[in-house]
Amino acid sequence: MVVGKAIVAREPTPSSTINWSLEEVEVSSPGDDEVLVQICASGICHTDILLTSVPSGSFGVAYPKVAGHEGAGIVRSVGRNVSDIEVGDPVLLSFYSCSSCSECKNLHPAYCKDFAVENYVGQQQFTSAHDSNELLWSSFFGQSSFAHHTIAKRSSIVQVKGLLQHDDELQTFAPLGCGLQTGMGAIQNITNAGPDDIVMILGLGAVGMGALMTAKIQECNAIIAVDRDMARLDLAKTLGATHVLNTSDPKFTTLDQAVRSIFPDGVSIVIETTGVPVLIEKGLQSTHTRGKMVLIGVPQLGYSLSVPVTEHINSGRAILGCIEGDSVPQIAIPQMIQWYRQGRFPFDKLIQYFNATDFQKALEALKAGTVIKPVLVWASD
Amino acid sequence: MVVGKAIVAREPTPSSTINWSLEEVEVSSPGDDEVLVQICASGICHTDILLTSVPSGSFGVAYPKVAGHEGAGIVRSVGRNVSDIEVGDPVLLSFYSCSSCSECKNLHPAYCKDFAVENYVGQQQFTSAHDSNELLWSSFFGQSSFAHHTIAKRSSIVQVKGLLQHDDELQTFAPLGCGLQTGMGAIQNITNAGPDDIVMILGLGAVGMGALMTAKIQECNAIIAVDRDMARLDLAKTLGATHVLNTSDPKFTTLDQAVRSIFPDGVSIVIETTGVPVLIEKGLQSTHTRGKMVLIGVPQLGYSLSVPVTEHINSGRAILGCIEGDSVPQIAIPQMIQWYRQGRFPFDKLIQYFNATDFQKALEALKAGTVIKPVLVWASD
Repeated sequence: MVVGKAIVAREPTPSSTINWSLEEVEVSSPGDDEVLVQICASGICHTDILLTSVPSGSFGVAYPKVAGHEGAGIVRSVGRNVSDIEVGDPVLLSFYSCSSCSECKNLHPAYCKDFAVENYVGQQQFTSAHDSNELLWSSFFGQSSFAHHTIAKRSSIVQVKGLLQHDDELQTFAPLGCGLQTGMGAIQNITNAGPDDIVMILGLGAVGMGALMTAKIQECNAIIAVDRDMARLDLAKTLGATHVLNTSDPKFTTLDQAVRSIFPDGVSIVIETTGVPVLIEKGLQSTHTRGKMVLIGVPQLGYSLSVPVTEHINSGRAILGCIEGDSVPQIAIPQMIQWYRQGRFPFDKLIQYFNATDFQKALEALKAGTVIKPVLVWASD
Repeated sequence: MVVGKAIVAREPTPSSTINWSLEEVEVSSPGDDEVLVQICASGICHTDILLTSVPSGSFGVAYPKVAGHEGAGIVRSVGRNVSDIEVGDPVLLSFYSCSSCSECKNLHPAYCKDFAVENYVGQQQFTSAHDSNELLWSSFFGQSSFAHHTIAKRSSIVQVKGLLQHDDELQTFAPLGCGLQTGMGAIQNITNAGPDDIVMILGLGAVGMGALMTAKIQECNAIIAVDRDMARLDLAKTLGATHVLNTSDPKFTTLDQAVRSIFPDGVSIVIETTGVPVLIEKGLQSTHTRGKMVLIGVPQLGYSLSVPVTEHINSGRAILGCIEGDSVPQIAIPQMIQWYRQGRFPFDKLIQYFNATDFQKALEALKAGTVIKPVLVWASD
């Protein structure tokens, strides 16, 4: 058992929809298929916010809980079934999968039969240090990495012992476990985009930027980046966008009109990361025949897309749901690290570091849109 | 110029929504990229009925017109740009494509930029033999094969000179140009179904049966055939269906319930050929993670499918529009003939022949559901 700091999310209130606080928690010993990890750094992703800002009950959410699903750290102890990881190993953390269902066996762990319950709900492995009767929900995405020490499931672990030049790189690589691999996988796994494709990316968060850098690597014919923030659009240009569309520009009318003023026939691929209904709808209409729209951004609760069926048939379009980019983290993350070293996946340009104690500042920066990927750094003691 | 019989469709009336009559028509000489074909046999497809039973104006439809888009015949004269087809050659007829747009060049002619206007609307190349002022719309799907003689576009022609054992086989092969290749292509081109797949086919017309036989050839793990007609379901069993669901069975509740009573996780592929909204909706819900639904059947005018976006994301499903199975007829049709000769694509079991003069009987049989693929046989004189 270890006692350490963690960011504990409690039931949202009308005055505080994100009700996080830094508290002392007790972390039990790892189970047979688990590992105790001392966290160096944790990326904040929108899903952390989404799943700690809804009332308990939604999606099985319960409070108090410790979120965090992009982590990096050092292994401090291992469960008895874990034979391929040792104390002292540097590891990155990604989502949980059961490793035994048919999707897992077929290398599609993001569609694991237990994905929702194990990643969104988790388990009660932590206890409040101030109230031993208060159990805290942990194992969020098999890791709950918003903690100085945490228990990670074996399947959440990406071994990076042979991939680091120095343990300090864990801070840089901390955010590879979710948003970036989602964007990467949307291009590589879901659409297999290549030189014949005109790719449009809706929303320039970590997912969108991951897709953008991957589309550039895949030598796509053109890449249109769409956002409402000029600084992000400017950054997108340096990362490979051939065209940018600013939805907050007063001259901006509708997405499909704007797209067709550049490419009259439309685009072949849309990567939708915003969850904004009008962008989803106009995004689909911006595709040409056999165009693919990849849905990633989670819209408001209950939103349904209306698909005119005859038009969909005649156009040969595809509407593709995508979670985690259909990635295998143990493959995708080493790939991104390799590209990073080659200078082709400069995701470090998206990162801003905060001390874990300053998590509120990180949240405010994320909300204000001034930072794309906030990374919380935990003290090394 | 040739004079011969043709089935002329006139503006539907309240008492006669399918207003066809056998009339004498004058067929002009073929243009530079066209061929004059004496038709031996023409398959009737639901699109012939759909596009002659709507008021003029819908989809660009105009009357009077000669439909027919699955034809077989003998070439009687060739335009001056046609160098690879000779008088006397046996040919099958399929849809038109321009051969020059990017989709055509990339071997996706079903998504030709001119597909709708050239295939659904056509041209006025025929004249009524009784009224030289009355022009008839022809070149339906580049062929208007409901005629004893017709003009076919070069791109609509599939040369079968080396593939026939006898010219009589043209009658058998006449219906290969649309529905069957659509079903075949839905499996081969759109979903690439294989031994890991559980395929469900909604509707057992020529498209559904083409998909069923192809899924069997592709050695799919299981094939569920769904229809309201027991005779079709029985035929489906002989063609490779491992399971059948009769929607007219009083015990039938909903499609997804019925499917999950057989396969609790659902199916991996749905081929939707009915256009019935409730089957489209429940079909999508019958798929498991990463399931693919291929939309082929045209629903009632204006129908839109409501897609819950978050569920679509989490499930990783795909909704795929499909026209003509994304087939290249000059590749797909020889393939189907080869399979037929191997006994693996016994599409002849679906055919019932009618003299062209008995087209009303064929229509009635199609409407009653007692025949799957009516083929009109034209006199050989």
